[in-house]
Amino acid sequence: MAVNIPVSSNPRIVIIGAGFGGIELAKSLADENVQVVLVDKNNYHTFQPLLYQVATAGLEPDSIAYPVREIFREQKNFIFRMAEVIELKPATNCVGTSIGDIPYDYLVVATGANTNFFGMKDVEKNALCMKCLSDAVELRNRILENFEQAVLTTSLEERDRLMTFVVIGGGPTGVELAGALGELKQVVLPHDHPELDFKKMQIHLIDMEDRLLKAMSPASSHSAEEFLGRHDVNVWLSARVLSCDGLKVCLSNGKTIPTQNVIWAAGVAGAIIPGLGQGSYAGSRIKTDATNKVEGYSNIFAVGDVACVVTEKTPRGYPMVAPVAMQQGQLLAQNLKAILAKNPDQKLFSYRNLGVMATVGRHHAVAELFFGNFQGFFAWFMWAGLHLMSLVGFRNKMVAMVNWIWSYFRYDSGLRLIIRLQHKNIS
Amino acid sequence: MAVNIPVSSNPRIVIIGAGFGGIELAKSLADENVQVVLVDKNNYHTFQPLLYQVATAGLEPDSIAYPVREIFREQKNFIFRMAEVIELKPATNCVGTSIGDIPYDYLVVATGANTNFFGMKDVEKNALCMKCLSDAVELRNRILENFEQAVLTTSLEERDRLMTFVVIGGGPTGVELAGALGELKQVVLPHDHPELDFKKMQIHLIDMEDRLLKAMSPASSHSAEEFLGRHDVNVWLSARVLSCDGLKVCLSNGKTIPTQNVIWAAGVAGAIIPGLGQGSYAGSRIKTDATNKVEGYSNIFAVGDVACVVTEKTPRGYPMVAPVAMQQGQLLAQNLKAILAKNPDQKLFSYRNLGVMATVGRHHAVAELFFGNFQGFFAWFMWAGLHLMSLVGFRNKMVAMVNWIWSYFRYDSGLRLIIRLQHKNIS
Repeated sequence: MAVNIPVSSNPRIVIIGAGFGGIELAKSLADENVQVVLVDKNNYHTFQPLLYQVATAGLEPDSIAYPVREIFREQKNFIFRMAEVIELKPATNCVGTSIGDIPYDYLVVATGANTNFFGMKDVEKNALCMKCLSDAVELRNRILENFEQAVLTTSLEERDRLMTFVVIGGGPTGVELAGALGELKQVVLPHDHPELDFKKMQIHLIDMEDRLLKAMSPASSHSAEEFLGRHDVNVWLSARVLSCDGLKVCLSNGKTIPTQNVIWAAGVAGAIIPGLGQGSYAGSRIKTDATNKVEGYSNIFAVGDVACVVTEKTPRGYPMVAPVAMQQGQLLAQNLKAILAKNPDQKLFSYRNLGVMATVGRHHAVAELFFGNFQGFFAWFMWAGLHLMSLVGFRNKMVAMVNWIWSYFRYDSGLRLIIRLQHKNIS
Repeated sequence: MAVNIPVSSNPRIVIIGAGFGGIELAKSLADENVQVVLVDKNNYHTFQPLLYQVATAGLEPDSIAYPVREIFREQKNFIFRMAEVIELKPATNCVGTSIGDIPYDYLVVATGANTNFFGMKDVEKNALCMKCLSDAVELRNRILENFEQAVLTTSLEERDRLMTFVVIGGGPTGVELAGALGELKQVVLPHDHPELDFKKMQIHLIDMEDRLLKAMSPASSHSAEEFLGRHDVNVWLSARVLSCDGLKVCLSNGKTIPTQNVIWAAGVAGAIIPGLGQGSYAGSRIKTDATNKVEGYSNIFAVGDVACVVTEKTPRGYPMVAPVAMQQGQLLAQNLKAILAKNPDQKLFSYRNLGVMATVGRHHAVAELFFGNFQGFFAWFMWAGLHLMSLVGFRNKMVAMVNWIWSYFRYDSGLRLIIRLQHKNIS
């Protein structure tokens, strides 16, 4: 059965996913004679770069999420449907979703990425991840509940397990999370729990590479490692996880860490949807040409993390980061306009890399920008400004700023809330 | 098995409940040679008067909740335990909780109130309530999901049921909620859902009395009824609910309203805990004397909504409102100090009623204060100021102010998020 969508004489462009790529594309089509149908399982856009702040009680969930309908309230040719996409049906030019089929003239897959456990079932079962808002809220609940449990237990072993956090993956997410945990240990949680000895709180950051932030320069890696060290984070390099049973983590370097808190930030895979031909997939991503057109189809495109733009210069595609997704969304809008105007020339995508940034902790970041490399407070200041500017919506900016100013002066955000919906309420 | 709590040579005062009464009492005991043990099933205090704002996407959940440990971080004689209290065991002077037994020298029950369905099973099954933070978040999710569903359905009957809201109970909560729903209809939701005809969105407020806000003056009731009328709220007086099956509500006045959204704000009952002697309970509350000492015990007290202070002047106790709880908490602290000082004279509680307020809608409230009665914007302004002042914590005040200023100018709060933890994550 087909989803109820107003009929339009204009061609319909269906976009799957309200991430950075999908939002940019839909915005860039605002003035065209098309019907833009955006489908997402959530009714909000998540500002993923700040998930770790929610997980460590630095920002409230609502200030990094923004309602999709709010973003497009002025856009007349825009239609939103909240649904999970189950299958692509290119033969009939429609998308199979949890609410029925949605026919399209042009389809753009912008589903982003999921956590990739590389088939490690025990990790998948026992580790928390950091990919969506409910992951972050769950991690926040877990951290806080553990300390409530730690004051109760009389078993020193259990208390140590509860107070030990192992972050797997030394990319930006893992580094940012470990740094934030270090601050919770040093400046926030001891005030909450005078009964506990916080020398016992351990934070471990594990990476298989020989340095953190491998995507950045050795200087940045060094700065991050040095800062984390000063903030009580134990960094284990050239080490991989062998097993994780919920009570301990075993590493390839022979070390075993007793812990009930393993956070997996070690890998992502494109959030592919079945239904395309074999040749259209490249591993866990969808293979496209330099115009983001999916291999083997004339009216299906993919942008962002899920898209693997295979060219001679990029045999394995572009890095799975927000700026790539946004630039691809913008360019695809232009190419779609050309197609609709029967104009044959298509622009080829190439990534304008404005730089990479990672915040390592309170007022310390590493940044490698087109105009130079920076470490420390100035880098953090740029990071904060950039992210505040990018946070969708004025209200969210204000709320985030209030929280940051507050924690700047108080070393404390007052968001340490364990909020769960009651089972009865989960539909 | 006993809960792990540091031993102290000082007498232990166990307080059940981190509501207005329990918090006030614990604060007032800050400088005494006692061990204050506060027990609550949540790790945060909820500012209940603003729950309806969370339910209608006016404030984020985090800005009306505040971590208990944060409130007391400077108080040396304070200990918090997160636990559900299951049973009182006065014979052995201890409290049975989900984490074990907690012995006490003095016990104060400050458990507040629960929703009272007066035994109507079908209402309990099919209605939402408004008593705790997860209720409010669930109601927010339900409202938003209904409109996502309404754009999908092709059945006009179903669409009407989804867009019809029935609030049962014409007290402050019901009035505030109905008013806020009226504003969502008039100024917020139509921008989100241009596909829907909002003339079809119905809001009904039902009360068994012959006027709303029975606790206030007829003038205030009239002002509220008149304002709600202007904001598309249908007020049904002298009517009670006969049945509620999830698809329709049947009223005693013969009217049947097709709806999938029934919000029950028609009654509360003391959140009593079993274990005391028969004579200690007065209906759904705990019977105390004018010093808040529980009938039949020398070291057990009750304050706030759960306490029924039976005197000649108050045969049925005091109204179940926050100011009563706070004043009782403050007075009980003094009386406990006297008892600990072997000082026999106990002060008797009498309620200083500074007035009642209810906000009916955007910039319109009714207030009856010791210095006069007010309606309209000025009353709303006082209401907003008072609640901002009372919101625990500077950060929360700032965030709430940002939201209110924002929605004042934008008629929109940007908090229309459907956020659910995934089932897997619900422990």
